[in-house]
Amino acid sequence: MARTTAAAAASPWTRPPARGARDAASIKRDAVLRAAAQLFNDKGYHATSLDMVAERLSVTKPTLYYYVRSKEEILFECVRLGLELMRAAIAEAAGSGGSALDKLEAAMHEYALIVTMDFGMCLIRVGEDPLAPDSRRKLRGLKAKIDHEFRSLIEQGVAEGSLAACDPKLAAFTLAGALSWIGRWYDPSGPVSAEGVARQSIGLLMHGLSPRPAAARARLASRRPATGSVR
Amino acid sequence: MARTTAAAAASPWTRPPARGARDAASIKRDAVLRAAAQLFNDKGYHATSLDMVAERLSVTKPTLYYYVRSKEEILFECVRLGLELMRAAIAEAAGSGGSALDKLEAAMHEYALIVTMDFGMCLIRVGEDPLAPDSRRKLRGLKAKIDHEFRSLIEQGVAEGSLAACDPKLAAFTLAGALSWIGRWYDPSGPVSAEGVARQSIGLLMHGLSPRPAAARARLASRRPATGSVR
Repeated sequence: MARTTAAAAASPWTRPPARGARDAASIKRDAVLRAAAQLFNDKGYHATSLDMVAERLSVTKPTLYYYVRSKEEILFECVRLGLELMRAAIAEAAGSGGSALDKLEAAMHEYALIVTMDFGMCLIRVGEDPLAPDSRRKLRGLKAKIDHEFRSLIEQGVAEGSLAACDPKLAAFTLAGALSWIGRWYDPSGPVSAEGVARQSIGLLMHGLSPRPAAARARLASRRPATGSVR
Repeated sequence: MARTTAAAAASPWTRPPARGARDAASIKRDAVLRAAAQLFNDKGYHATSLDMVAERLSVTKPTLYYYVRSKEEILFECVRLGLELMRAAIAEAAGSGGSALDKLEAAMHEYALIVTMDFGMCLIRVGEDPLAPDSRRKLRGLKAKIDHEFRSLIEQGVAEGSLAACDPKLAAFTLAGALSWIGRWYDPSGPVSAEGVARQSIGLLMHGLSPRPAAARARLASRRPATGSVR
């Protein structure tokens, strides 16, 4: 299972203090955000109250207010963290070795996995609609960076001949849409792992729904690992 | 332009009564829903007030309450109408003549166009999160019908050999995700028409990002009209 539900359910207020470099307040704030993200994803943002977040962590509501000011601040942070995780993972994929195709596939893979996790799923299921215009603007800036990275990888792939000629803007949106949607429907308790879903979706986006001639399939199979079936 | 912004901006309260079969109250209620959907899509659901809807239609807020009870009821109706448009269009495509591939492409085409229109865009941009559990359940029932129709067409396409072997459930979600996302980023005032976006996205989903061998491309081109470029 990709989500850390079990880890978050064990509230840091009911466990002995963690040892190590990270400071206890930051661990507790992270637990507040994660518990809230899980509730937003399961029940919806509107149907989730701070009382429910407090209850899940076995603390009082005033305790929560030590770490966050409002439900809106929690959502902003959850969506921001989801976008930050994506941006960092895609930048890492783009900075790694290999062809533009390898980098694009690695970036798509990270994107697909992140939307199955607490903050990435919250970004897709709730998003920024409930936030004030200023917060929404900040998040849009982060989104634009992610979109730019995808477009750039697609442009490079077309230039190196590993991708079909296409409009990089539209192709980037098509990929991002298909992969983002995983965050809407993916059920961590379902039969297919996030890893399996990611590989199948990426295979479909790379090769399309139309059948490929046998010769092309064989060439593709010899060039890199097959995306494989997950059942 | 696919959206009917201009039509809705001309409030039915400020025009002479329309002639014909539809009753005036129903035309006015539709104008309320459409004006609200446009505001939700442009400014976000939370940032839109009923005062703003009334102002756009040049009526008072009490006048609005003659047609709708609350902002929540408006959103429910907008999302429901978006889903109903999709369900009807896909059912029509599925019931038409031709191969499963033809039907699937027609259904995808309708889906892509609907998410660029007021109610379909509202379904994607706002969705059901702000609604009460009972309303959300009703909308989920409609969504399930649409998903079922897509899966069924994909299964038929695989069976007739016009689609590559795939997991129909995952393929349906991948298509729906890529096409739904159009509703998030599409700008009716941008350089590419909704029709152009739909054709390019569907082309990419059918043939994938990977380059196809020239022979396969030629065969595809001879079999049906090319998806074409839009710029």
